[in-house]
Amino acid sequence: MRIDIITVLPELLKSPFEASILKRAIEAGLVEVHFHNLRDYTTDNYKSVDDTQFGGGAGMVMMIEPIDKCISKLKTERDYDEVIYMTPDGETLKQGIANQLSLKENIIILCGHYKGVDQRVRDHFITREISIGDYVLSGGELGAAVLCDAVIRLIPGVLGNETSALTDSFQDNLLAPPIYTKPREYKGLKVPELLFGGNFVKIEKWREEQAYLRTKERRPDLLKD
Amino acid sequence: MRIDIITVLPELLKSPFEASILKRAIEAGLVEVHFHNLRDYTTDNYKSVDDTQFGGGAGMVMMIEPIDKCISKLKTERDYDEVIYMTPDGETLKQGIANQLSLKENIIILCGHYKGVDQRVRDHFITREISIGDYVLSGGELGAAVLCDAVIRLIPGVLGNETSALTDSFQDNLLAPPIYTKPREYKGLKVPELLFGGNFVKIEKWREEQAYLRTKERRPDLLKD
Repeated sequence: MRIDIITVLPELLKSPFEASILKRAIEAGLVEVHFHNLRDYTTDNYKSVDDTQFGGGAGMVMMIEPIDKCISKLKTERDYDEVIYMTPDGETLKQGIANQLSLKENIIILCGHYKGVDQRVRDHFITREISIGDYVLSGGELGAAVLCDAVIRLIPGVLGNETSALTDSFQDNLLAPPIYTKPREYKGLKVPELLFGGNFVKIEKWREEQAYLRTKERRPDLLKD
Repeated sequence: MRIDIITVLPELLKSPFEASILKRAIEAGLVEVHFHNLRDYTTDNYKSVDDTQFGGGAGMVMMIEPIDKCISKLKTERDYDEVIYMTPDGETLKQGIANQLSLKENIIILCGHYKGVDQRVRDHFITREISIGDYVLSGGELGAAVLCDAVIRLIPGVLGNETSALTDSFQDNLLAPPIYTKPREYKGLKVPELLFGGNFVKIEKWREEQAYLRTKERRPDLLKD
C-alpha cells in the first residue's frame, strides 16, 4: 500500500510516522508513506497556498491551483483508488471504513488547513471526504495521521500478533472487556479471582458478558446496528 | 492551562506540538504541555511498563504501578481538574467537550498503548475516559494530540482571529458552508457569482442556506439534537 499525504505542514506529521507501529510497518515495506509540501507546487514568489474568502469572512482558504498541480502530478505517476480530503463535515471515520481502506493500493490524503480548501477542489478532485469526529482541529494533519494509523495497523503483517486487531473494540460491534495484568493485588486493589483459574471456557464466557455489559452501559447504540 | 501527558512514546507526540497553532500557543504562554515518559516511573531493570494479560489472550497490558507513581507525583505538585484516559470505549469527543475542557486549569491525559491499561487504573485513578471516534488506533498518543489540538485552539488568544473558531463546523450544530478563494475562474471552474456582489446580507443568507442544506444532506442527525 502507498499513501501520499498533501499538506502545508509536513513537519507536523513527522513524529507519528517515525515511532512505534507506523515506523515498523514502513521499515518492513508493508506501506509507503510520502509527504508532499503544497508550497512546492506554488507558482508565485511568496509560495502562497491560501488567500482570503470571496464574500468576506474570517479565515484563509486554500487555493485550487497548487492542489490541482500536486494531485495531477501524482496521478501521472500511478492510479489512485481514492483521493481523500480530511474535513469535519466529511463521512465520519468508523472501523469499517478503516477495514475497507486497508485493502486499497494507492491513496492520496489532502489535509485542509486554515479555514479549509476552495470548494472547487472538493467538487472536482476529491473522491471521498472523511472526518475523524465531530470536533474541529487546526488542520487536517492530525486527522490524516489518525486515519493512517487506523488503516495501516490493519494491513496483514503489521501487528505482531494478527489476532490482536480482531479482539479490539468495534470489530464485532462490542467494546473490549476489562483487562488485567500483574500484580494480582496492588495497594489492596485485586484482580478478579476467576482470571487465575485457568478455566478458559469460563474466562471466555466472562469476557463476553463483560464486553456486552460495557457496551450496553456505555454505547447502547452499537448494539442496535 | 496546563496539560500533562503520560505516555510510553513521548517521541511520537513531538512534532504535532512543535508546529503551527499548538507551537504558537505554547510559545505565547497560553498553555503548557508536559510529556511524562512512563518508563521513568518503573522500578525494575528492564523498565517494564506492560505485562501479559491475566486469563490469557493476545496483546500486552499496561501495569498499574508506574501509572500510579506518575499520577501521584503530579498530584502532589498541583490539583488536577481531570485525569483523562484516551480509550476507544470512552465517551466520544464532541465539540462541546472540547469547549468544556478548554476552561479547565490542569489536566492529565493518560495514553493507553498495547492492548490498554489494567482495569484497576481506570476504576481508581481516571476521572474521565474519552474516545476520539469509533475506530482503533495503535495507541492513545494520537488521540491525546487530537484532544489537545481541539481544546487548545479554543483558549482565548490562541487563534489569531477570535471569530474564526465560532464559525467552524459544529459550534452551532451546523456544518460550515462552502468557501472559495481566488481565482474567480480556474480551468473553467467558476466561483458562484453571488459572492462578488458585495451584498453581504445576501451572502450571509446564502451561507446559512448552504450550511443548512449541507447538514441536512450529510448529517441530518445534527439537526435533531
